[in-house]
Amino acid sequence: MIAGEQALAKRSCMLFSSPDDPVDVWVPELQRNLPEVEFRVAPELGAAADIDYAIVWKPPAGLLASLPNLKVIFSIGAGIDHILADPERPKALPIVRMVDPYLRDMMCEYALLGVLHFHRFMPEYQADQQARVWQRRWPHYTPEMTVGVLGLGEIGAKVAESFRQLGFRVRGWSRGEKRLPGIECFHGRAALPVMLSACHYLVCVLPLTGETAGLLDAAAFAALPRGAVVVSIGRGKHVVEPDLLSALESGQVGGAFLDVYASEPPQPAHPFWRHPRVIMTPHIAGEIVPKSSAKVVAANVRRHLAGEPIAHVVDLARGY
Amino acid sequence: MIAGEQALAKRSCMLFSSPDDPVDVWVPELQRNLPEVEFRVAPELGAAADIDYAIVWKPPAGLLASLPNLKVIFSIGAGIDHILADPERPKALPIVRMVDPYLRDMMCEYALLGVLHFHRFMPEYQADQQARVWQRRWPHYTPEMTVGVLGLGEIGAKVAESFRQLGFRVRGWSRGEKRLPGIECFHGRAALPVMLSACHYLVCVLPLTGETAGLLDAAAFAALPRGAVVVSIGRGKHVVEPDLLSALESGQVGGAFLDVYASEPPQPAHPFWRHPRVIMTPHIAGEIVPKSSAKVVAANVRRHLAGEPIAHVVDLARGY
Repeated sequence: MIAGEQALAKRSCMLFSSPDDPVDVWVPELQRNLPEVEFRVAPELGAAADIDYAIVWKPPAGLLASLPNLKVIFSIGAGIDHILADPERPKALPIVRMVDPYLRDMMCEYALLGVLHFHRFMPEYQADQQARVWQRRWPHYTPEMTVGVLGLGEIGAKVAESFRQLGFRVRGWSRGEKRLPGIECFHGRAALPVMLSACHYLVCVLPLTGETAGLLDAAAFAALPRGAVVVSIGRGKHVVEPDLLSALESGQVGGAFLDVYASEPPQPAHPFWRHPRVIMTPHIAGEIVPKSSAKVVAANVRRHLAGEPIAHVVDLARGY
Repeated sequence: MIAGEQALAKRSCMLFSSPDDPVDVWVPELQRNLPEVEFRVAPELGAAADIDYAIVWKPPAGLLASLPNLKVIFSIGAGIDHILADPERPKALPIVRMVDPYLRDMMCEYALLGVLHFHRFMPEYQADQQARVWQRRWPHYTPEMTVGVLGLGEIGAKVAESFRQLGFRVRGWSRGEKRLPGIECFHGRAALPVMLSACHYLVCVLPLTGETAGLLDAAAFAALPRGAVVVSIGRGKHVVEPDLLSALESGQVGGAFLDVYASEPPQPAHPFWRHPRVIMTPHIAGEIVPKSSAKVVAANVRRHLAGEPIAHVVDLARGY
C-alpha cells in the first residue's frame, strides 16, 4: 500500500461500552481480531463523529444517540433488551445480537447443572453433609423424567438435545412451529399449559419480548406437575417472582435454580437469597467470553466493511 | 404343558441378599421379569439346596458358602469387591458384575454434575448467596479445560464422551491400551503422572483391584495441575484419604466431589463432612435401579437356563 492511501482512508472506529464486562480483556481481544479498526472506550468518545460501530452492554441512555455516524450496534449478550431500554437509541440502526456457539455451550452447561442439581438431590445431600447424615435417597429414574425447554432457537435447541442425550424425555416450546429430532415440540401460547403439564424440570432460555415477559406466572406454575423444578436462564422478567415464591411455598414448585432476576442484583431483602429451595447465581449462565465472542464480532464487522449483509440482525417487530 | 411335568421339573430358585437395597422393589421387579423362577430373601433361605442363583450386595460372610447348589453369583453393583470381601465365598463360581446401560448413564450424570459444580463456581456462588453477595466470577473457558477420566470401560468411555460433547478437552487412562475418538488415551501405571499433568478435573470410575487401590495418593495429587478438582465415584479405597486432605489443605487439589469413601459411612469425626471444598454424597452416583437392572439380570439368567454363556462374568485374575 502506498503511504498516502493509508492517510487518506478513514480508519473505521468502534466504541466499547459496558458497566459489567472487563474492558482490559475485551478491547485487546477485539483489537487482535480487527487490527484495521480503531477502538475507543466509553465515556472517552474522542470525536463522536468518528465512531462507526458500537459494542455495548446496558449502554447509558443517550450514548448511542450521541454518535452521529453510528452504523451498527453490537450487543454484548444474546438478548438486546438492555439496548431497547434506552428510549433515545437511534431506532433506524441495525442491532446485532450475540450468536456465539460458546455462549450456547455455556448455557447448556448451566442448564445441565441446574437440572442435575435437583435431579440428583443435591439440596438434600448438601443439608445431610452439614448434619453429618448418611442417607441414600431413592433416585429418580431418568427415562421417566421430562425436561421442558422454553425457547428453541440456537440455545434452546442445543439445550434440548443435551438432555435428550442424557436419556431424559424432552419437550420444547417456541413461538413459531419447530421440529427437532427426538424432542416433543409445542408452539404458541395456547399450547403452553399442555406442554408444561408433563415437565418435571423446566428450563427457560427465551428471549425477553412483549410476548414472553411474565410468561412464568401463577398459571404456568400451576400447569406443571407438582414439585417441578424451574431453571431460569433467559431474563428475570420472564418470571413473575411473587408467583414463583407462592408456588415454592405451596410446594407446587419444588425448587428453582435462578440466574436472572426482575431486578439485578436482587434487593438484599429479596426472599430468594435465603430460600432453602432456591439456588442463585449472578447472571453468569451464558457469559460472553471475549476469546470466543470477539471472533464472532470481528467476522461480522468484516462483512459490513466488505458491503456484505451482516449476520444476526434483530427483527425488531419480533423482538429477537 | 402336562400337569405332571410342572411338578417334576425343579423350579429354578434365586436368593436375594442386600443390606442396602429395597427388597420390596427388587424382588417384585425380578419376579415380573422372571416369572418362571422362585425367589427367596436372605436370611430366610428355606432349603438351601434349592438355590441356584444368588443376587447380592455385601453378602454376609459365609452366606454364599452355605448354598451347596449355587451356580452363579450376580452382583448388585458394577464392582464385585463387596463379594470378594467374603473369605468363604465359593471360589469356583462365576461372579457376574452389573453392566447396566442405565447405571452407566447415572454415573455420567453424576460426573457431569461433579465437574460442572466446580467448573461453574457453585461452591463460591452458594457461599455468596448465603452472604447475599452478588459477585460475578470470570468463567473458565471450557475449550481450554481438561477432564481426565480414570477407567475407560463401559462407564468411563461414556463419561469421557459426555465431556467431549460439552466441549472439554478429555484425557482417559486405563490399564490396557484403549482408543476412543476425540479422547487422548493413556495406559499403564507409568503413564499416569503424564496423563494427570494436564487434568483440571479428574473423574475416577475405576474398578477396585489390587492394582487400583490407593492409586490416588500424594504422588498422583502432586502430578495434577494446581487447584485441580477430584470427582471420586469408583470406590473409596482408590483414594488415600489423608493424602487428599493434605492436598486440599495445601490448595494443590482445589475441590473434591466424593461419592465413595474408604469406610462407608465415614466416621462422624471424618474431616470430609465439614470441609469447605468437599461435596459429599452417600454412594449414590451409580445406583442400581431395579426397573432397569432386573431386565439385565433376567436376560442373563435366561441365557444360563438355556445353556448359553452368561454375559459379564468377572475375570478374577484381572479383578473386573
